[in-house]
Order: sequence, then C-alpha cells, then structure tokens
Amino acid sequence: MSSHLGQLFRISTFGESHGGGVGVVIDGCPPMIPLTEADLQIELDRRRPGQSEVTTPRNEADQCEILSGTFEGKTLGSPIAVLVRNKDHRPEAYSEMSEKYRPSHADYTYDAKYGIRNWQGGGRSSARETIGRVAAAAVAKKVLEHFCPGIETLAWVKTIQDIEANVDPLAVTAADIESNIVRTGDRTIADTMIERIKEVRSEGNSIGGIIEAVVRGCPPGLGEPVFDRLEADLAKAMLSLPATKGFEVGSGFDGTLLKGSEHNDHFYMEDDKVRTKTNRSGGVQGGISNGEPILFRVAFKPTATIMSSQPTVSKEMEDTELKGRGRHDACVLPRAVPMVEAMTNLILCDHLLRHRAICGGIID
Amino acid sequence: MSSHLGQLFRISTFGESHGGGVGVVIDGCPPMIPLTEADLQIELDRRRPGQSEVTTPRNEADQCEILSGTFEGKTLGSPIAVLVRNKDHRPEAYSEMSEKYRPSHADYTYDAKYGIRNWQGGGRSSARETIGRVAAAAVAKKVLEHFCPGIETLAWVKTIQDIEANVDPLAVTAADIESNIVRTGDRTIADTMIERIKEVRSEGNSIGGIIEAVVRGCPPGLGEPVFDRLEADLAKAMLSLPATKGFEVGSGFDGTLLKGSEHNDHFYMEDDKVRTKTNRSGGVQGGISNGEPILFRVAFKPTATIMSSQPTVSKEMEDTELKGRGRHDACVLPRAVPMVEAMTNLILCDHLLRHRAICGGIID
Amino acid sequence: MSSHLGQLFRISTFGESHGGGVGVVIDGCPPMIPLTEADLQIELDRRRPGQSEVTTPRNEADQCEILSGTFEGKTLGSPIAVLVRNKDHRPEAYSEMSEKYRPSHADYTYDAKYGIRNWQGGGRSSARETIGRVAAAAVAKKVLEHFCPGIETLAWVKTIQDIEANVDPLAVTAADIESNIVRTGDRTIADTMIERIKEVRSEGNSIGGIIEAVVRGCPPGLGEPVFDRLEADLAKAMLSLPATKGFEVGSGFDGTLLKGSEHNDHFYMEDDKVRTKTNRSGGVQGGISNGEPILFRVAFKPTATIMSSQPTVSKEMEDTELKGRGRHDACVLPRAVPMVEAMTNLILCDHLLRHRAICGGIID
Amino acid sequence: MSSHLGQLFRISTFGESHGGGVGVVIDGCPPMIPLTEADLQIELDRRRPGQSEVTTPRNEADQCEILSGTFEGKTLGSPIAVLVRNKDHRPEAYSEMSEKYRPSHADYTYDAKYGIRNWQGGGRSSARETIGRVAAAAVAKKVLEHFCPGIETLAWVKTIQDIEANVDPLAVTAADIESNIVRTGDRTIADTMIERIKEVRSEGNSIGGIIEAVVRGCPPGLGEPVFDRLEADLAKAMLSLPATKGFEVGSGFDGTLLKGSEHNDHFYMEDDKVRTKTNRSGGVQGGISNGEPILFRVAFKPTATIMSSQPTVSKEMEDTELKGRGRHDACVLPRAVPMVEAMTNLILCDHLLRHRAICGGIID
Repeated sequence: MSSHLGQLFRISTFGESHGGGVGVVIDGCPPMIPLTEADLQIELDRRRPGQSEVTTPRNEADQCEILSGTFEGKTLGSPIAVLVRNKDHRPEAYSEMSEKYRPSHADYTYDAKYGIRNWQGGGRSSARETIGRVAAAAVAKKVLEHFCPGIETLAWVKTIQDIEANVDPLAVTAADIESNIVRTGDRTIADTMIERIKEVRSEGNSIGGIIEAVVRGCPPGLGEPVFDRLEADLAKAMLSLPATKGFEVGSGFDGTLLKGSEHNDHFYMEDDKVRTKTNRSGGVQGGISNGEPILFRVAFKPTATIMSSQPTVSKEMEDTELKGRGRHDACVLPRAVPMVEAMTNLILCDHLLRHRAICGGIID
Repeated sequence: MSSHLGQLFRISTFGESHGGGVGVVIDGCPPMIPLTEADLQIELDRRRPGQSEVTTPRNEADQCEILSGTFEGKTLGSPIAVLVRNKDHRPEAYSEMSEKYRPSHADYTYDAKYGIRNWQGGGRSSARETIGRVAAAAVAKKVLEHFCPGIETLAWVKTIQDIEANVDPLAVTAADIESNIVRTGDRTIADTMIERIKEVRSEGNSIGGIIEAVVRGCPPGLGEPVFDRLEADLAKAMLSLPATKGFEVGSGFDGTLLKGSEHNDHFYMEDDKVRTKTNRSGGVQGGISNGEPILFRVAFKPTATIMSSQPTVSKEMEDTELKGRGRHDACVLPRAVPMVEAMTNLILCDHLLRHRAICGGIID
Repeated sequence: MSSHLGQLFRISTFGESHGGGVGVVIDGCPPMIPLTEADLQIELDRRRPGQSEVTTPRNEADQCEILSGTFEGKTLGSPIAVLVRNKDHRPEAYSEMSEKYRPSHADYTYDAKYGIRNWQGGGRSSARETIGRVAAAAVAKKVLEHFCPGIETLAWVKTIQDIEANVDPLAVTAADIESNIVRTGDRTIADTMIERIKEVRSEGNSIGGIIEAVVRGCPPGLGEPVFDRLEADLAKAMLSLPATKGFEVGSGFDGTLLKGSEHNDHFYMEDDKVRTKTNRSGGVQGGISNGEPILFRVAFKPTATIMSSQPTVSKEMEDTELKGRGRHDACVLPRAVPMVEAMTNLILCDHLLRHRAICGGIID
Repeated sequence: MSSHLGQLFRISTFGESHGGGVGVVIDGCPPMIPLTEADLQIELDRRRPGQSEVTTPRNEADQCEILSGTFEGKTLGSPIAVLVRNKDHRPEAYSEMSEKYRPSHADYTYDAKYGIRNWQGGGRSSARETIGRVAAAAVAKKVLEHFCPGIETLAWVKTIQDIEANVDPLAVTAADIESNIVRTGDRTIADTMIERIKEVRSEGNSIGGIIEAVVRGCPPGLGEPVFDRLEADLAKAMLSLPATKGFEVGSGFDGTLLKGSEHNDHFYMEDDKVRTKTNRSGGVQGGISNGEPILFRVAFKPTATIMSSQPTVSKEMEDTELKGRGRHDACVLPRAVPMVEAMTNLILCDHLLRHRAICGGIID
C-alpha cells in the first residue's frame, strides 16, 4: 500500500478509520520554518466531520499532536510526525459489512488484493485517511509561504450535480469560500446547493459535483518535464483523493473543441514580466508553471454509501442485498475543498524544493 | 528534469528531437521474457512521423537498436537500453525560434526554468521524446502478456473536435483501430475525421480531440491505495503526454450529474467470478482494479504550432510576432493513440510487479 | 534529513530524544503476517537503556504502541505505525550543550547544516532514534520467517577494545549471546569484557569494539547487481548506525593479503545443493546471496561522551572547554547488537520483496 | 537489477561486457554546466583496459559519445545519455563458462537468481559495467567544481598485498598518483608494487590490496542523517564496486582499540573557521561533513580469475574442474583508483543537490 508521496517533501500517511489513530510523517521539510500545532489544526478543522449541517454527523475533534521535528516553534529539518487519535468509534455499525461488499466501495478490491480487510468503517479507504494529507499540507503551505511570499492556493465547489456556481478564479477569496458551509465561492448559489444536499440526504441518497481550484502568485519554473510535469503530478494527486473520477487543467475537455488559432495563449510583456493574454494553458506549459494562475477542476462522484437496499455479493461469493448504515456525507464536496487545496500544496512544495536543488533560487 | 517513471519497472528516457538520438533504459524487467527488436519496432512504427497523410511529413524511419539486456532472444533481468538515432534534421527551420517564444509551447518555461534550451525543434518537449516511452512500453506489453495472458490494452480516437465516434469498448479490436489512418474504432466516421484534419491543416490551423482507452482482461488486485491508486497513476501518465489537458475514468465528469443510487455498480456472481452490473467505476475501486474493463478518456488540445502569425515576446523580453514553421501534425491524435496505450502498459506493468512483491501471484 | 529506508519494505523513522516520542511508519509490509506488540517489545527491550549494569542508567520502559496496520493480530498490508513515548526527560543535563559543541558529536555539523538544533540530548543524533529501526526490524523478522522458514540473523560482540571473543558463526545461538550482558557469543570472555567496560566507565572514559554477525539459512538469490548489491546495502545500513566506522564482509580487509588461489571459494555439490568449500565471499557473490552463511563485521568507535573536560568551540565561534554530563553508555556495543541484527533484517526483508517482484518465489 | 543510483543526481547504467555497448543516462544534472565528451574521455582513459603493463591486455578504446543533454558545450538540464561501444569481443574465450561456474565469480548466483546469464565475459558483473559509472562521475565532478570551487577527490593504492605505501592525504597530488602505472601516491614504493603484480601474473595468480581516498575542500553540511549519512552512502557506493570486501572511514577498525579520550577530535577556531585538531572522524560527524578532509579506505580482494584449474560445479549440478581463460587483470587496483574517485564524486554530487534543496546554498 503506497502511502508515500513526494520526492523531496516526502510524506508517509498512516491509520485506519478505527484503531489507535491516523497521522503522517513528513521527511524533507526545510529547517527554520515557523510551525505550531495551531497551523495544522486550522486546516484539520475545515476537513473534520460534524463541522456543519451538510456533513456527516460523525463527531471527531481531530485534535492533532506534533510528536517530533519542531523545537521552540520552528522546524528542525528532522521528520515531523503528527498524530490524531480516533475517538468516536462505532464499529458495530459496520458488522454487516464484514460479510458483504458495499457496492462501489473498496471492500471487494481490498479483499481481492490483500485477503484481509479492516471492515470497521472502511479501514484505509475511509475519508479519515486524508487527515494525514491535510496535516502535512498545512506544513507545505508554511514552506511555500516562506519561500514564495504571495502564493495562494484556493479551491471551491464549482458545481453540485447540475447547480453551477459563478466564480472568478482571479478574484475569489478564502473568506468568500468559507462564508458558506458548502464552500462555493458564489454566495448567491450557496443556499441552492445546500438545499439540494439536504434534500438528497433526506432521501437517503447522495450526490457529487466539481471542485475548481486556482494557484495565484506561483512563480514560473515549477514542474519538471518529462514525467513529473506539474499538471501530471496534480492529476495524480487529485485522482488519489477518494471519490474522484476526473481532472482537467486550463481549457480541459472543452479545449478539444477549439482550433489552435483559438486555443493558443499569446505572450506579451507587462512591465518586465512575460504574461499571456489568455490562459487556456491553465498556468502550465511544457509541464512547467509559466507564472499565470494555475487553474484546474476535479470531478467527484456521488458518495457510494446510500441508505437503500442494493444488490451485492457476500464474502462467501453469494448474491445478496445490503442496505447502507453508519454516518456518512451525502455529498463529500464541502469537506473535499480543503483536501484539494492540501494535495495542491503538497505537490507545489515538493516541486519548489526540487527546483531549488537543480536550478537554485526562485524567479521573482 | 524527471525522465524517470515507475517504482519497479523503471524507465529513464533520454534525447532531444535534434542530436545524437533518443531512447530509453529499462531497469527492473523480469528475466526470461522473449524479446526482440521487432517487438519494439512494431509499436514505434505506429508512433513514427510520416506514416500517413494525416501526420507530419517529417520522415524518420525510427529504427531501434537494443544495446543491452537481452541474450539469445530473451531478457536477462539486466537493464535494457534502446537507441533510436535522429536522422531527418532540419534545425534551420527553427532558427527564428531561438529568439522568439512560440505561443503555448514550452519555449518560455524551459528558458525561465533552466536558463538554456535546445531550440532546435523543441528539444525535450518535442513529441520525439515519446519514442523512449513507446519502446519501453513494448517491453512492458510483453511482460504483461507473459504474466497475465489475455490482457489487452486498446486506445482509439473518440472525438476529433466535435466529430464523435461510436465505439464499443468491449468489442472493438486492434484491427478495427488500425483499419483507418486516424485510428478511430468506428470505420463509418473515419473519413469524416480525416477530412476535417486535412481541411484544418490546409488552413495552417490545428485541432484536438479525445482519445478513449480500455484494458480488457486485467486481473483484480492491481493498484495501491493511498497515493498510487491505479487511476491516479494512469492520470499522471496521461497528463505527462504532450498536449493533454484532461483525464477521466469511468463515469468521469458526467458522473457528477448522477445520484448515488444511479451511479453505484451492483455486484453479482457470474459463475465463480465477482462482476458488476454496470461499470461506472471504470474498472477501478478504491484504487485497485476489480476485474471489470478499465475505461478512461484523455483530452488533447489542438497542436500549438499553426502557420499564421501570432503575437509573442522575444528572449530579449520585447513584444514581437512569430509565424509557425517546420513540419508538424495538424492533429496529434492519430499518433497519440499508441502513446496512450504505451503509458497504460507502463503503469500496469509496474503495478503488476508491485503486486507480486507484496501480495504474491495474480488472481485468475 | 533522510529518515527513509527501503525500496519496497519502506520505513520512515521519526522522533528526537526529547519530545513527544519516537517511532516509525512501515509501508509495504505484506498482508496476513501474524504481528502483535509483543513481537516488537521483545526486541525493544534488548535495545533499551537501563537494561543492565553495562548500559546507561537512563531508564526508559520504551513501551511501544501499534497505531495502525494490524487487525485481529495480523498485518493488513496498510502502513504500520509504531509509537514509543519519551519519558525520562532531563533536558537540564544538556543546557551547557546548547552553547558548546561536544567533540566528535553531531552538534556542530547539525548547526552548520540546518542552522537549528534540538540540543536536548542530541536530538535526532541520539541513539534513541534507533527505536524506530528496531521496531520496524521486528516486523521485518516476522516477514522473513514467514517466507524463508529457518532464516536466522545473529550478531554478537566480537571484540571490546583488544579483548577478542572466540565465536563459531555456524554454531552460536541466540541463547549464547543473551546469556551475558555484554552480548558476546563466548561465555568464557564475557566477564573480562564486562570488567573492562566498568573500569573504563569508572574513569569517566569510553571504549569501542567490533560486532560480528551471521545470517544462516538465507536462500540464494537475494541482492541486486549493480548498485544494490546485498553487501553494499548492508554496508550502508551498518554505517548508518551511530558510532560506526567500518564494515567488512567475508574475508574483509585481511583478504587483501591473500592470493587468488588462496582466496577463491571452490564450488561442490552437497546432495542437490551447490555449496562452497570455504566462505571467504561471506555468503555473497556478485552482490547476490549464494546460500552460504552471510558473514560480516562492524567497527564501533568509543562513545564520544566522556566525563573529562575537553577543548572545543562555542556557538559564538569562540574557543572554550566542555565536560561531559548526562547519562551515557561507556560502551555502546551491548546495545548495538540488536541494532546490527535489526538493520540486517530490514535489508534482507526489502530484498526478499524485491526478489519476489522481479524473479518470483524463493529458491529452496 | 538495480542499476539506479542517486536521489537527485540520478544515474542509470546499462550494458553487458559483450553486446551493443555500455553506458549511462544521467537525470537531474543542473543546467548550464560546461561539458564536452573530452571531460568524460579523460576519466574513461584512466579506467580502460590495456592502458599499461599491469592491466589486462584486452584492448578497448572506450570512446564515448554523448547522445543527449548538452547543447553548445553546456548541459541543458535534460538527461545526459552516454554510449561506449564494445569492440574487442572474444566470446569464444568464454564458451566453457557457459557450462561451468567460475569459483568466486557471480556466475552461479546470477543463474540462481535470474535463471539466465549472458556468459560471454561475465555480462553485467564484468568490470566493463563500471564505464557508465566513470562517465557519469566525470559529469558529477564538473557539477561539484561548479558549485564548490576547490573541492578535490583523490584516490590511490595504499597497499598491494602486504606492500604498503606512505602517502600524506593532505599533500598528495593527482600528478603524484598518475606518475606511476600502479597509481600509488608513493613513488618510492611503486616499482615494488609493479614487480609484485607482474610476478603474481606470471604465476597465473592474482592479488588484491587497499585503496585510500580523500576529499579535500568539501564544505561542511553535506550528508543527511539518519539513513543517508555521507559515510553510509560512501560505504554503499564502494561496496557496489566489483571485488570490494570492506570499507572504513577515519579511524576505522583501528579506532576500536582507542579510548574515547584518545579518539575524540577537539574543536578549535582557525580564523573564523571551526576546525578539529585531529581527524579520527574522517571528516564526517553525525553523517554530515564537518569541513575537514574526508578520509576512507576500501579493501579489494584478489581477482577471482586465475589460470590454474580449480574444483567447481557445472550448470547440470555436477562436480567438475575449470581453468581460467580470457584476458584479466591480475590485480584490479590500478584501474579501481578512478572507480573509487568516481563513486565518491557521484555520492558527493547527489548530496550537494540534496543540500541545496533543503538547506539552500553551500557554506563557504
């Protein structure tokens, strides 16, 4: 099970949804970066269950402890281990799942691969696994801010099912996004989205949608041809999040409808800076950031757990039925917003260090 | 520049579009796999320029030489080095590009990152770089066939701009795809696509489209949660191909419009095999293949090189204009079909070896 | 700070000698291996301070907790996180060390590299860091025993300063080694060694020596040419232990005095098994185990901390003097024996999984 | 077969002793470093067979070709591929070895592991494999000189069997070492060593010895605790060279005889620089270079190929005899000197880039 990410800013996450706890070890963090548990907690609180009426009622405080790697409020350059204890266990809600495979969950494939599975709450395929990522990304964010002042990663809910928000990626603020519990950047549509989620949840059903993200203030030069292109690493990072089904950068799938003459981004000088008139490239050319905002979108399917009975098979390889139980998000997107930001910052931070190694300092 | 891919089946590609040659070193190939240069050449011929009237007229035979790693027609377990010499150099076509940045190409970002650039034909950002990938993937294909008899990866052109092919992923054959020079699986639409490409090329313009792919006969168990999910590694692999802007697996972006009750794939027993009634998961659940066909799509933007004059900036940071020259594909998709298959096979082969390491043999 | 080891059986250690705790995350452990905290504790107890009259009096129970990766007494294939809390803090013993560099310690180089240092007890350069290694190696040992029944790694104190033990690597047992607190395999010399350590400690001084190790029952085929030869990975593993200054395998440095005709190990058949008459190769040929016992030796310098005043420099770059304080081993070797075994098992386990990946099963 | 080395300055070597050729791909070389084929050839010439009367008469010009990664005499930041064709094939000298295992060679273990072996000249276990290392290291040397002006790595023959040279590591020059064909730094003993090698060769026998090395002008800060300590990575690099049996740094095995009070290196200020009075640490403390000369020794066993008949077994697992044939070095040390320097520079260069990534620039 590959729970390692990053070449230089390397993270190793651990933990099942039920058991001693979840967390992460970060190896490769530069020394002398100011860091406290509060820096991590603020991001964990955005991710935690039970935070609002559109998220699962499972209630976890998700208080983190930094076990190592800091001293007197600064990073040491040594591994930073972070632990969050599991608290609100209700394994009994999952007992039926020890015998039957939940449709469109990872139950069957885990068993097929490993021959064993912690069936209490989904084990490692639980969204709880993302705690380690979000904690590590809070550290990555501090590193990015230290070396690239002004860089900012923001994600927001772009669509819930067919409800689409109108958000300007160049102008939207963190406050806009946090102003509503669904975390869309468009306050006028937030209530409509919230109503839809509540409605679907009351039916015992679930829905998905699209999250959009931007990185503003990213210097040119991050990303490495050939295989570790910035957009390739972002694609991998996003598709590693639970429930994701698609990724597109810049013009994306719609860009396939344009001709080259319509799609190309013309360069021009703005003062002493190279800019592009349009940004269909999405801030990345040849796998390397070009200084324009990095823009991408991630598709999330409807949550697999629904409260109606569905056909499935048992561990004994017999046809059967299973009805969802437990406490789940009817729509993962509000809580996935900080996860998308987290994965983005992890990738950017790793590429920042890689750039320093090979090419030296950052271009301003 | 990260030209390494794979954890166990590890490839290192090298070479600029102009210079001594391009190629790859494969480390981690199992021993005793039958392999000859002909196995590689058949795939390289599908990728090579000048192969048909819808590809660039640059004419390269792209004859490969295996320098090491085989003995009496079998792999040794030692590194397999493959070299393809560059032949049809015309660096003079690129002289203007040494001074001006081509819009939506990698010229500016390479200079911003590295401070130096082989401007002769795009250097490492040339499609010529993919020769090493295709050669390595021909080896990966042999390994897959050795350990998973019956596995088959196929890709085809699904759309050219707004022209859409009707292809059944469960039934389409390699012969169907190779029966037409645009490499769509739908013979009834091939001529329309070919006409569109010719028309756009005659305008000095370019177009893109979508490639769809399937892996049939993939055993359950390939892929590793958390970060190296099969779909995550496929997403990265695809987005590492030149001109790609998006990736979706299974239901993809359209899946965001469905409710959970509509999206879930119900399990059932077919003889002694676990199957799903539908396949919106795209053959992957929890990051691990479930034995159903793996299905995904990749968006390719229109080629950046067009034959009309476009605004841009010079190396001296002054506004200027540049008109495309050189020999280029007006549409990369026909030649990208073998590249998509290649990247798929590289990822599958690596995960096959990883599965053997941790979990032992393959499930039949 | 690179706290990662292994390509497939990958461990990430964390923790300073003072702070929340120390531990390890193991990623890549095969599923279904029986494992409990008791399996780890038995090895940690051999490593812990305060265990006997020849080790440091710092008293740490070093009780471990498995935070994740097991379920009902078996490994899940998911990351195994292990935590050991720090208990017996006495940072005040180190206050002078915040200002002055201890001779032949890592204080100066850590400051030179990172610009910051957890001066409380040596931070990450403390022997306490090896807890994570020993815990991870206890898991590696279980994996080895599962896949290679009969394999056994043993290490013992071969010399303390000029006192040399007489040990037969083919016959020595774990019980022989554990029968005396200095952990030599030669009971007749143990008391002499213990007396020497006590004598040197009473002078406030310190001593070193050589640890010898054997792996018996290792199947042929482990290790990978070219760079990851088994002896190369063992050499790295041993030199990564604190206080080590040398490594030799088989005939070692003395082998340089022989002629080829005297050094070569002649093959012969013993029943249906290929054997060698002598074992100057040390069980490894061409970087790959040949089925003979793997034999090597590791040199440990005298502990750097001594209780007399020594010239040194301060953080302010001024000449000064420093007298050792704190609780330290006058001789690290008795506690280094389980560390040498641990590093050996980590390397063997990683190569076992690598062998399965590329070459399949193990040769019996 | 792991033919990859390095985390950032990553090399992949390839090639058997008989076949198309041998070489290397270097990924991760910084851009803008002056580099030509002549820079590589000068080191390859020191390694090549047939260079003097104490080396094998196999005559290979070993002319290298840089296939990619440079442009107008400078590195591009893209992969640098280097190819050396094999020329002087005499596979017929090896035909008997296709059937019988040479004692103390890798023949048996390769067959045991891979089930196949290129028996023509030793395949990948041939010293010819080191060509890729030496070529890559010539690039590493240029990078080191670029970023750490004044850094210098030198190795020399310290002993041939029991003949010991008297060399001052602080004063010896490259010219001293190259002044004699045995490559010892002590001109007074060179002829004695040469005579011994000739004498042993005339007997059809072989001998070994010890190579000593120094890195002068290495800045403090290179190397990473915990696992990738500078001495640990050097140990691995050295033990990955054919015929090596031991490694020691600083005081080494002899240091185990001293007490702490005799072994510790006292710090003092020399102008504004922290120095140590003695250098038993060998220039590395806590795994990090401290600015003092890095000092180590490597043991090489006598060459396994000797011209007398020896007992061995056949592929068919029967006892038999084999007499050495082919052209071989009776003593590898003169040609191993540039290999030891090469491996050192590869490790230093990788750690230099790693240091830049995490800690920024180099301390002067």
